[in-house]
Amino acid sequence: MHSLRFTTETSSAGVVERDFTVGEVPGVLWSPVSGSKNAPLILLGHTGGLDKRTPGILARARRYVTDRGFTVAAIDAPGHGDRPRTAQDERARIAIPQARAAGEPIGPIIAEYNAALAERAVPDWQATLDALQALPEIGAEAPIGYGGTTLGTVIGLSLAAVEPRITAAVFGAPLVYEALTEAARLVTIPILFLLPWDDAEIDRRSGLALFDALASEEKTLHANPGGHHQIPRFEIEHEVGFYARHLGRPATSAA
Amino acid sequence: MHSLRFTTETSSAGVVERDFTVGEVPGVLWSPVSGSKNAPLILLGHTGGLDKRTPGILARARRYVTDRGFTVAAIDAPGHGDRPRTAQDERARIAIPQARAAGEPIGPIIAEYNAALAERAVPDWQATLDALQALPEIGAEAPIGYGGTTLGTVIGLSLAAVEPRITAAVFGAPLVYEALTEAARLVTIPILFLLPWDDAEIDRRSGLALFDALASEEKTLHANPGGHHQIPRFEIEHEVGFYARHLGRPATSAA
Repeated sequence: MHSLRFTTETSSAGVVERDFTVGEVPGVLWSPVSGSKNAPLILLGHTGGLDKRTPGILARARRYVTDRGFTVAAIDAPGHGDRPRTAQDERARIAIPQARAAGEPIGPIIAEYNAALAERAVPDWQATLDALQALPEIGAEAPIGYGGTTLGTVIGLSLAAVEPRITAAVFGAPLVYEALTEAARLVTIPILFLLPWDDAEIDRRSGLALFDALASEEKTLHANPGGHHQIPRFEIEHEVGFYARHLGRPATSAA
Repeated sequence: MHSLRFTTETSSAGVVERDFTVGEVPGVLWSPVSGSKNAPLILLGHTGGLDKRTPGILARARRYVTDRGFTVAAIDAPGHGDRPRTAQDERARIAIPQARAAGEPIGPIIAEYNAALAERAVPDWQATLDALQALPEIGAEAPIGYGGTTLGTVIGLSLAAVEPRITAAVFGAPLVYEALTEAARLVTIPILFLLPWDDAEIDRRSGLALFDALASEEKTLHANPGGHHQIPRFEIEHEVGFYARHLGRPATSAA
């Protein structure tokens, strides 16, 4: 098992932000200045083509920490951010814009690449989780949630299907392929599912079908007008309430 | 114009509850003991077959008043609660259980009756609104929202389509008929739409289509597992947040 190594630390407005590595995997950990022992830990997965410090992740990390005293961790997906690219990554980085420029459907290329990324990312997250739980400030008792849209959902759903430590998750706007629907059928934890109602690249019916496939007894779908990456800011408040409901730590007990 | 006449008043746990009449229409007004001048006013419509004091309305009225200092009003729909029944009401009260017992589809009967009720209820709500706004404790400046599911949505949508004083609404689980979809196309205010995902009586596709028809720039659909009347309790919290976002009055300024 790789242990977690902190590389940098900054702090602002009550939030400590530390870069870390677990083996080859680079990540960021956000936690309250006042400490986080046994606080819920939220793992955030970024969207395709971006990295662990996307604006969406930064905004969520800060809100989750300051509103509820949660701990938040994000890592770079394989072939993304500070990670080396394999031949497969390089091929996808060429094929996707090529297809788009040629007016060809990019869905099948992205779906195939996403499926491969999810396979590579699940062990990364499991190793990161092992290392995070080994930190005395987090420990093995902290309830664990996951959140991420598009590629972050593809990876998170694949993770939640095999990883019982994840006990609540926020997903949204994934490109659906058959193996992902199969993974959804294995997921029984509470889910908040964010669906862009006017996604030009992904038919809303495929999102509704994926939501339907989830085996979870408690699952909520929130649909809002807008395209692929246009999830309204007010959903962050619902995410916080969702995690608090399922992972504990009410607002009043936050630092 | 009929003025509003209070008939009874009780008070408990910070909430004043008063029965009233506006002409022939009986209603209930809930308000904070501490006063409500210019606070948002939420009109609540009950589900079919019930009345202005359904458990769902009582739970919401108390939460809206105590969480945010809103004022809340509910009235009996035509032919419901304390109101006299017309020949049309009597026919529907016989036809619906008869059809159900015979295993015949009740949808068309309910849709036709609901459409008639909406036509009768819109002027009731408008007269009630006139009378409520004439009360010094409410006034003409209070922002106005509407909430109601099933019959409450049929009436509320018909009201919102013609009544500019309603500026935000929560709807859910209506039996959709063509004129209702036409009304939805006229609605441009922010909407929170609650859709039971497993409604045995109403196909989820008709709810999704109605949501799609709303002309509102800001609209959010929340789908949850469960049948026709099974909206999870945690949605009340989302309703409060939704009204607060669009009608003002943040939590901290509540009484």
